[in-house]
Amino acid sequence: MKLYEGLADYLRQRIEQGFVAGGERMPSIRALSREHGVSITTVQEAYRQLEDAGLVESRPKSGYFARLRSTTPDLPQVSRPVRRPIEVSQWEDVLNILGAEAPSKLFSLGHAMPDLAGATLKPLLKLWSMQARRSDMRGLEYDSLRGTEELRTQVARLGDHSGCQLHPDELIITTGCQEALFCALRAVTEPGDIVAVDSPCFYGAMQAIKANDLKVMEIPTHPESGLSIEALELAMEQWPIKALAVTPTCNNPLGYSMPDSRKRELLLLAQRFDIAIIEDDIYGDLTYAWPRPRTIKAFDTDGRVLLCSSFSKTLAPGLRLGWIAPGRYRSQVIHNKFVSTAASSTLSQLAVAQFIAEGGYERHLRKVRAQYQRYRDQMVSWLEEHFPPGIRISYPQGGYLLWVEFAREVDCVELNRELSDRQFRIAPGVLFSATGKYRNCMRLNFVNGVDAQTEEALCVLGDMIRQRYPD
Amino acid sequence: MKLYEGLADYLRQRIEQGFVAGGERMPSIRALSREHGVSITTVQEAYRQLEDAGLVESRPKSGYFARLRSTTPDLPQVSRPVRRPIEVSQWEDVLNILGAEAPSKLFSLGHAMPDLAGATLKPLLKLWSMQARRSDMRGLEYDSLRGTEELRTQVARLGDHSGCQLHPDELIITTGCQEALFCALRAVTEPGDIVAVDSPCFYGAMQAIKANDLKVMEIPTHPESGLSIEALELAMEQWPIKALAVTPTCNNPLGYSMPDSRKRELLLLAQRFDIAIIEDDIYGDLTYAWPRPRTIKAFDTDGRVLLCSSFSKTLAPGLRLGWIAPGRYRSQVIHNKFVSTAASSTLSQLAVAQFIAEGGYERHLRKVRAQYQRYRDQMVSWLEEHFPPGIRISYPQGGYLLWVEFAREVDCVELNRELSDRQFRIAPGVLFSATGKYRNCMRLNFVNGVDAQTEEALCVLGDMIRQRYPD
Ligand SMILES: Cc1ncc(COP(=O)(O)O)c(C=O)c1O
Ligand SMILES: Cc1ncc(COP(=O)(O)O)c(C=O)c1O
Repeated sequence: MKLYEGLADYLRQRIEQGFVAGGERMPSIRALSREHGVSITTVQEAYRQLEDAGLVESRPKSGYFARLRSTTPDLPQVSRPVRRPIEVSQWEDVLNILGAEAPSKLFSLGHAMPDLAGATLKPLLKLWSMQARRSDMRGLEYDSLRGTEELRTQVARLGDHSGCQLHPDELIITTGCQEALFCALRAVTEPGDIVAVDSPCFYGAMQAIKANDLKVMEIPTHPESGLSIEALELAMEQWPIKALAVTPTCNNPLGYSMPDSRKRELLLLAQRFDIAIIEDDIYGDLTYAWPRPRTIKAFDTDGRVLLCSSFSKTLAPGLRLGWIAPGRYRSQVIHNKFVSTAASSTLSQLAVAQFIAEGGYERHLRKVRAQYQRYRDQMVSWLEEHFPPGIRISYPQGGYLLWVEFAREVDCVELNRELSDRQFRIAPGVLFSATGKYRNCMRLNFVNGVDAQTEEALCVLGDMIRQRYPD
Repeated sequence: MKLYEGLADYLRQRIEQGFVAGGERMPSIRALSREHGVSITTVQEAYRQLEDAGLVESRPKSGYFARLRSTTPDLPQVSRPVRRPIEVSQWEDVLNILGAEAPSKLFSLGHAMPDLAGATLKPLLKLWSMQARRSDMRGLEYDSLRGTEELRTQVARLGDHSGCQLHPDELIITTGCQEALFCALRAVTEPGDIVAVDSPCFYGAMQAIKANDLKVMEIPTHPESGLSIEALELAMEQWPIKALAVTPTCNNPLGYSMPDSRKRELLLLAQRFDIAIIEDDIYGDLTYAWPRPRTIKAFDTDGRVLLCSSFSKTLAPGLRLGWIAPGRYRSQVIHNKFVSTAASSTLSQLAVAQFIAEGGYERHLRKVRAQYQRYRDQMVSWLEEHFPPGIRISYPQGGYLLWVEFAREVDCVELNRELSDRQFRIAPGVLFSATGKYRNCMRLNFVNGVDAQTEEALCVLGDMIRQRYPD
């Protein structure tokens, strides 16, 4: 065992045995170095390990703190969507939440915008600004169809974190993850086909299914282990399902990550029925525990997984930069990408590639992972405090979104309407179903986590629910 | 008549009567002011008028010069495409020209990339760089679905140039003109439908037709007056055509602009047969004569025209910023835009909006229009000098692309292949047809216009043709 590992173990025990309480300050690096007779670097390395394991967090200029630990709340029930292929509706509700105006105008607990205010994003803007001043004007040119070599190289390297060996040439850069999903869907289906999805499911994927005249088969999902493989198998025996679209890691909206073993099972099932898997990994790098779980793509042996992702949640959505590793569907995906947008923004690609190469991405991740985990804990506590008893709350393992399930009669679409003069919004559950199910659920973000405005909003919401539904 | 108009008239006569030869220096502003006893501003205004009329051009630091005037060359014949709806092929050829690598690596007479080296683009980069450093991080946020208010306002204002009164709310910002075309096509058709196009036709539009399982009906086109309205009428009587996709101003690849009267006729015909018009105006602001011709959209009374455009040719393609004015198809286009890319890059939108607001766009246009017209004249002269006799050349009224038609036996796909170790490329005509017609044609750009490398390339090409096809 290395020195720093021994020290990390010692500190872990102190926390786990309750000698240091959640939120309390950890011993300073200097103190530990003196006390244990080890170098500063060793102590730093030990803390890094604990940070990656989600046990401590660093706060700028004040050192390390033991994590606030919420206990698992009452989880939502396993979802029970319609048991046959159906057409997607709900576009009006989606349009409503997207809103006509820019999202920034409104304080929102409904959006899935990451925290953009942190110091670790600043260097990205600086690089962007520098790239814009390159004298060779490269940022203004048409990019190649696949995306810049620089960015593909960096994205391939990031694949290591999820056990995925990618070659830069296997990747195609897209205009956000949405374009990746759209191109993937079009590559593996014909109009009229059936696509299975995890339910509740990200509405962008479902609307893309609708736009391509596909039918959706919603599969029940467990709030901790994810998509029910058993239910999927049953569905595939009954219906000619062509593909599965799924967000197995830091799921939107539930927040779970499917265990690696279940991911492998899913792949085996897909092989058995010979269907394609569209894997949305957009929040995957935001798992609180590090190393992060693998992608299904990591187990893929015959190119049937189309891995889709972007920097919209890990860095910033305004970049509009995503990617797809399309496996054996490469040629169709290239055609789809060409006809839909021809190329992606060159300048942003160059800036992000440089940011990753200089270590900025990993530095930023380290920071926001710890931050979002702390926010989750705070959010869960607040919800238990300010919302009526009996609610069920998902317990995210990454990202900044969670799902709240109320009693049957609670109508979150109504609640949202009523909120319209309160200057904030939630995302009603109906968005995440093809048929307007989950009316008694809502998705909340905890991006702004521990600020007073968020707690205030939750109080308002809690009061509103208690008033409207006095048990 | 205003003072400057009188002076402009006088100078125009001097040029037209041959007192000043093409390429010759015009009298200096100071000299004219002294000679005619008018203010500096008056002389400047007179020169501006002549510049807009395409009679003189300004060269940085050396004053005004009379334009080199080429005479109209032997024009290509009216095109004669297949006379029934067909499926689009040619993707392999398109992929080939797009290439795997970034286009910048290769000197190319085939690409449609504008000149990015000019001084008038520099301020855009500066603004971009500044926007990236905004402390409110707005450039990193998700944009609203329609695009930023700032950019939509500016684009609506630019509509005035083409006689088009647009309200910012009618516009949707897209990821380049390609996404605008793609969303437009999907909004007005169902799989299996027939879409009429001008032939030869931009390959991106045709590949989008292919990707949506549509059939294409190629309509003959005159190299000066554009799409044959008579042939379109005949086609519509015979086939259930759903929409027309057309580039009527500064056409790619031919360079013509349809007269406003023919545009109006086209609209009337579309009304009579109740079809939608997808109008691609991407090169429209690059017409040499100013004010520029109107768009078909300018005559639209019942919202059947979907105007598509972008800044890819007027400013820079790396921006990936376009727009669509979808008329009555707005709601379908919004859905299509959401599912294909969700939003466009926020930062670039803010930078371009500011650039236009500060007058940078119009300043840049003024410069490149004059430059491209000069390059056209040079290019036509070089082609007549270095290519075998008997060729036919289109005579663009704007933009930087022209079309060369050779004798029947000349195979431009072959020529391009042979060029592969010469470090430059052309765009073979087959790209612009659904069925591989126009094999004996090529599209050339004259972006680099008057430099030695271009003339050298044309010599190489001319020799190659003469050798392969010794008459
Ligand atoms: C699960 C999931 N996939 C895809 C997307 C779309 O991502 P992008 O903004 O990169 O297009 C989102 C955005 O909310 C998402 O939550
Ligand atoms: C006529 C025409 N329309 C559309 C496009 C695509 O434009 P953008 O790069 O803005 O997507 C091009 C590009 O070559 C074009 O020539």
